[in-house]
Amino acid sequence: MPNLSNHTLSALDLAHIWHPCTQMKDHEDFPIVPIKSAKGVYLYDFDGSSYIDCISSWWVNLFGHCNAAINAAITNQLNELEHILLAGFSHKPIIDLSQRLCALLPRPLNKCFYADNGSSAIEIALKMSFHYHHNLHRKSPPRSKFLALSNAYHGETIGALSVGDLGLYKHTYAPILLSCLSVPVPNVFDGTKGASLHAPAELEDESYYERELHALESILSRYGEEICAFILEPLVQCAGNMHIYPKAFIKKACELCRSYGILIIFDEIAVGFGRSGSMFALEQCRITPDFLCLSKGITGGYLPLSVVITSDEIYQAFYAPYESGKAFLHSHSYTGNALACAAANAVLDIFATQNIIEQNRALSRAIFALWQELEELNIVKNLRHCGMIFAFEIDSSTPRAGVEIFRAALAKGLLLRPLGHTIYFMPPYIITIEEARFVVQTLKEILQAHFA
Amino acid sequence: MPNLSNHTLSALDLAHIWHPCTQMKDHEDFPIVPIKSAKGVYLYDFDGSSYIDCISSWWVNLFGHCNAAINAAITNQLNELEHILLAGFSHKPIIDLSQRLCALLPRPLNKCFYADNGSSAIEIALKMSFHYHHNLHRKSPPRSKFLALSNAYHGETIGALSVGDLGLYKHTYAPILLSCLSVPVPNVFDGTKGASLHAPAELEDESYYERELHALESILSRYGEEICAFILEPLVQCAGNMHIYPKAFIKKACELCRSYGILIIFDEIAVGFGRSGSMFALEQCRITPDFLCLSKGITGGYLPLSVVITSDEIYQAFYAPYESGKAFLHSHSYTGNALACAAANAVLDIFATQNIIEQNRALSRAIFALWQELEELNIVKNLRHCGMIFAFEIDSSTPRAGVEIFRAALAKGLLLRPLGHTIYFMPPYIITIEEARFVVQTLKEILQAHFA
Repeated sequence: MPNLSNHTLSALDLAHIWHPCTQMKDHEDFPIVPIKSAKGVYLYDFDGSSYIDCISSWWVNLFGHCNAAINAAITNQLNELEHILLAGFSHKPIIDLSQRLCALLPRPLNKCFYADNGSSAIEIALKMSFHYHHNLHRKSPPRSKFLALSNAYHGETIGALSVGDLGLYKHTYAPILLSCLSVPVPNVFDGTKGASLHAPAELEDESYYERELHALESILSRYGEEICAFILEPLVQCAGNMHIYPKAFIKKACELCRSYGILIIFDEIAVGFGRSGSMFALEQCRITPDFLCLSKGITGGYLPLSVVITSDEIYQAFYAPYESGKAFLHSHSYTGNALACAAANAVLDIFATQNIIEQNRALSRAIFALWQELEELNIVKNLRHCGMIFAFEIDSSTPRAGVEIFRAALAKGLLLRPLGHTIYFMPPYIITIEEARFVVQTLKEILQAHFA
Repeated sequence: MPNLSNHTLSALDLAHIWHPCTQMKDHEDFPIVPIKSAKGVYLYDFDGSSYIDCISSWWVNLFGHCNAAINAAITNQLNELEHILLAGFSHKPIIDLSQRLCALLPRPLNKCFYADNGSSAIEIALKMSFHYHHNLHRKSPPRSKFLALSNAYHGETIGALSVGDLGLYKHTYAPILLSCLSVPVPNVFDGTKGASLHAPAELEDESYYERELHALESILSRYGEEICAFILEPLVQCAGNMHIYPKAFIKKACELCRSYGILIIFDEIAVGFGRSGSMFALEQCRITPDFLCLSKGITGGYLPLSVVITSDEIYQAFYAPYESGKAFLHSHSYTGNALACAAANAVLDIFATQNIIEQNRALSRAIFALWQELEELNIVKNLRHCGMIFAFEIDSSTPRAGVEIFRAALAKGLLLRPLGHTIYFMPPYIITIEEARFVVQTLKEILQAHFA
């Protein structure tokens, strides 16, 4: 093999790869970083530099890179069965996984419909909610509207993008999107009110969300009978700048929607699997949605897999003689892939045997204590956390301050990837407190050097 | 482990799994088949029965299940790097794969944008084609219509479903889909005209598609300036009942569209990677599309991975200072997954070292010679083939004749899964002529027993 350096590989990369969510021109003066190998929280490039993966590779990695237990599960599965179509057929990894996921959830959530990525799970939940009303009522005009929160992000296929609200991803495509109803999300961390608030437990005062509930009531009184489903990312709108909002609002908003016969979709693609502090955010919200969308952490950051978990009541509305035309005829070729399911079972084994949720509580408190040290910097505002998500905004007029921080962090051995002016830390759960201290300390130095 | 039988596992499966593209009530009297292991073209269930995978597990498997070379590639990759986000970062498997895919394609197709499944690739191509016109012309009203063929299938997320035309999957969702323009696809195998036609090479007479070209001209003269892209599955509409249609039509239709500034999207998710007889169907069509969507066979049936390959010209229309807002900000968490890319490189190695396309030519001829023996049965009509796709319709008034054949075939050790009345054979490329003979012979017995 010829000499492989970051430089040679970055050039080869740019010749043929169009990277996701990237203005490629940015890479004229800032090379792509080719990663050679990874272990635990560390990534290693071809020039011998290492980086702590502070964002769990887009919020997917839970137990470190090249985790021995997950590797072993995939290798074992490779020797038995790599993949088989899931229509008419099944396999043990998916049967085990489905049983285990349902056992972790409130009893009504009992049926698993699989796909490959988060966007596809959202599309399935949207179609299923529409189809449920169609099968049950066949009324005309049908319920064909979706309700979502302001500042929401649910993915980027056309259906998922339609229920999102981030102009950055959505604005250009308006002429080819579905129209969607939007209710304002309570904005507690606005830099003024609640400047000392730090976590969801402190946000339950009704004054924080009264106005938004009224806005919802007004939308429902006008459109309540036309809406199929209300979709939301509970507790934290992650791509929406790690926006933490009150769980009491979520509970009341969902109850209001249900009084109009509207189904509830929880998008726990980012917040599920312990990220929010509980195994699933729905536990903290005390709401059992009609559809729960999971992906990202489900395979511990190894392989694409997603699932929509719903109730027997929803399932029964589709269960009828074939000729009735009520079946949910949706599929993706690799739905329920055996290798991905084997990884997911290994992830659930780690949760079960290592008492992760409990351990994360202590780790979350310890990391947040470090994180709070950043509050002494003038440019840090809205410092906050929820479970294993830690964030703040930087108070800077530099237009691309986040990109500056990304580049400076990389030079110091951290993979941080801010969302605009929002700096966040969302590490794999195996990070040690010493590693977290290094991350926070380094970040502090960067902020002092660049925004003093 | 307790006694695992088909019976016990099927019951556990039905308790928690909602299968794709399935009326679950069908499984009241016909159990799900749990597959324990697989090797080559054979699947093995928990009761010790084996099945030949005659449909490559939904058209994804190319070189057999648990293929030693692909297994080794994934195992090696597991020890180095399982996954890293692709924004700002890269890895050797994806750099190699992108370079190799571009080298296999006409020169203009030079930039790879990755996703996880076929539907997502279609959504990306649709959004990119819209966005291209927006970036270049910013005219108002924008080009916001898509043009597709009748009888088309391009996936089931809302964008992909909108450009499809199969009522079975689409009809229910009409109120939540985008409107789309449709041009009739030439229908050569209609049971009357061309009853002796068997393959694409025989379909080039202009009389077979003159009417449809006129229909296209009429659509274009009315809407030509409003259309972003023309999307089609070249040579064979696979989910559209393995409908083979003339390549001369494809070439002329694309040229007509281009004269109106319309971009061309080839959906080679099913027909790519040798399935149509050439590495890619575009070779036979002699058209270089603006977007080529690939998935399914790309990983040899192992893992979800998809890619949209486009030209430097398209790429350049998005390449601008960040502030211009021209970037294509689309992403999926697992985009460019290293394990899936490692599998894909192993697949390309097999193509390169084992001269697969050439070998398949001989195998295709030999299998079709067997397939033609079925033509002597009265109920077999429109018998045809294209590369490694073999199909016919059964001339029966039984409403679910395909399901009957599926069940009868399973009892005789074949996984066949007809599309309505269309019976097709789409095996992994490693099937031997003896195995193919057993498949055709068994199918003949089933047809004689059930539809004599």
